[in-house]
Amino acid sequence: MPRYALKIEYDGAPFAGWQRQTDHPSVQGAIESALARLEPGPHRIQGAGRTDAGVHALAQVAHCDTSRDWGAYRLSEALNYHLKPLPVAITAAAEVAEDWHARFSATERRYLFRLLARRAPATHEAGRVWQVKSPLDLDAMRAGAAHLIGHHDFTTFRSTICQANSPVKTLDDITIETAPGLNGPEIHFRLRARSFLHNQVRSIVGTLERVGTGHWQPEDVKHALAARDRAACGPVCPPQGLYLSGVSYHDDPFS
Amino acid sequence: MPRYALKIEYDGAPFAGWQRQTDHPSVQGAIESALARLEPGPHRIQGAGRTDAGVHALAQVAHCDTSRDWGAYRLSEALNYHLKPLPVAITAAAEVAEDWHARFSATERRYLFRLLARRAPATHEAGRVWQVKSPLDLDAMRAGAAHLIGHHDFTTFRSTICQANSPVKTLDDITIETAPGLNGPEIHFRLRARSFLHNQVRSIVGTLERVGTGHWQPEDVKHALAARDRAACGPVCPPQGLYLSGVSYHDDPFS
Repeated sequence: MPRYALKIEYDGAPFAGWQRQTDHPSVQGAIESALARLEPGPHRIQGAGRTDAGVHALAQVAHCDTSRDWGAYRLSEALNYHLKPLPVAITAAAEVAEDWHARFSATERRYLFRLLARRAPATHEAGRVWQVKSPLDLDAMRAGAAHLIGHHDFTTFRSTICQANSPVKTLDDITIETAPGLNGPEIHFRLRARSFLHNQVRSIVGTLERVGTGHWQPEDVKHALAARDRAACGPVCPPQGLYLSGVSYHDDPFS
Repeated sequence: MPRYALKIEYDGAPFAGWQRQTDHPSVQGAIESALARLEPGPHRIQGAGRTDAGVHALAQVAHCDTSRDWGAYRLSEALNYHLKPLPVAITAAAEVAEDWHARFSATERRYLFRLLARRAPATHEAGRVWQVKSPLDLDAMRAGAAHLIGHHDFTTFRSTICQANSPVKTLDDITIETAPGLNGPEIHFRLRARSFLHNQVRSIVGTLERVGTGHWQPEDVKHALAARDRAACGPVCPPQGLYLSGVSYHDDPFS
């Protein structure tokens, strides 16, 4: 019974999130349904991370077990065929060891958050960026973000329904840079950690946006973190700018 | 009666093209309708270039005359308000002289064509790029493109319904470069000329793609041009990768 690792790209807009749900379309459910077109099911795939409703992925990773020896390339081609016309694509596949686990073997997750700061409504990038109308101070946001890097109790920055055992996590890095975009220069937030709490990235970016507009001072982020109180968080920003951009493993199955 | 220059960005997908049509949605018609919400019409705006159905713009330019002195900023804000929820945005506006003309005063038009060469279906970029499944040889395409730069009879590369008086045009430049994209590296074709013939960019890119796959040799582009025969053209590529990316004027009204 071979096990395959799948690298998956998706537009989150039409989905209620990654995780399979009974009454709503999910990315996991779509891929499991595509697998069931290849082999009698039910199939259960395991993703490296759960993304919320509307959140995108450039390189989610999941694993699946099949009864036939499809070969990685044929499997990805067949899944892409059956996923059409959904905005979900298998961009790579690789056979892995039977004990390889997309979630538990992962050593790092990376997220990209795209923000477009301009007055005129976005056209091509609507639904793909978070648009704010006022310019943002990048240096102030970087100063605010610096308080969050490292090993902290992130209670302030996690959803009240977060299921993680502990709110203590190590946030390895946050970078904030401008990047060219089809609808004008964007601000890209990139975050790296072994794992993230529920709504952690959107809570952080929403808080940093308050710093960028000048409504918060950079040191207010430090105080919010120290409060270890969900009520001290800035507004959670919307999902459409968020992309799971990569997952790392000790031995990259796709290399 | 003030005249305003408008810089316009749009997603071409929902439109039958730039030009107003009786029974189909057009970008020009959408902006004229928005103007009619501000002042009794009918309003007629003049664009720098006509884009076909499905073709996008990052910086189309048009001019309009109004009876009231709106001021450029207020006019753009009011138009954007009334354009919602269409994927059309006025990204800049400027008052110009009464004899300034978006089409006849233009000294250069620029187009970007985005091509994504990969097997897996595009997700976020579907409808925004032309996807081809095989890798393309950039150097071969550049060698083919070199035959087209300069002053030529472009009969081979214009639509049979092109209304231009002459097929003779000067193509100032074609560059072909890779560029990072959300769904992986893209190939960006950038073309510059005082003016273009109908379907000229799509005829050129479609022909160069044949060179990129190896079905044509670079010199075949030279022979096709010399034939001055529409039948000698390669396949015209689809519109969704094409963007009117800029229009130049002796005195840039937006600077």
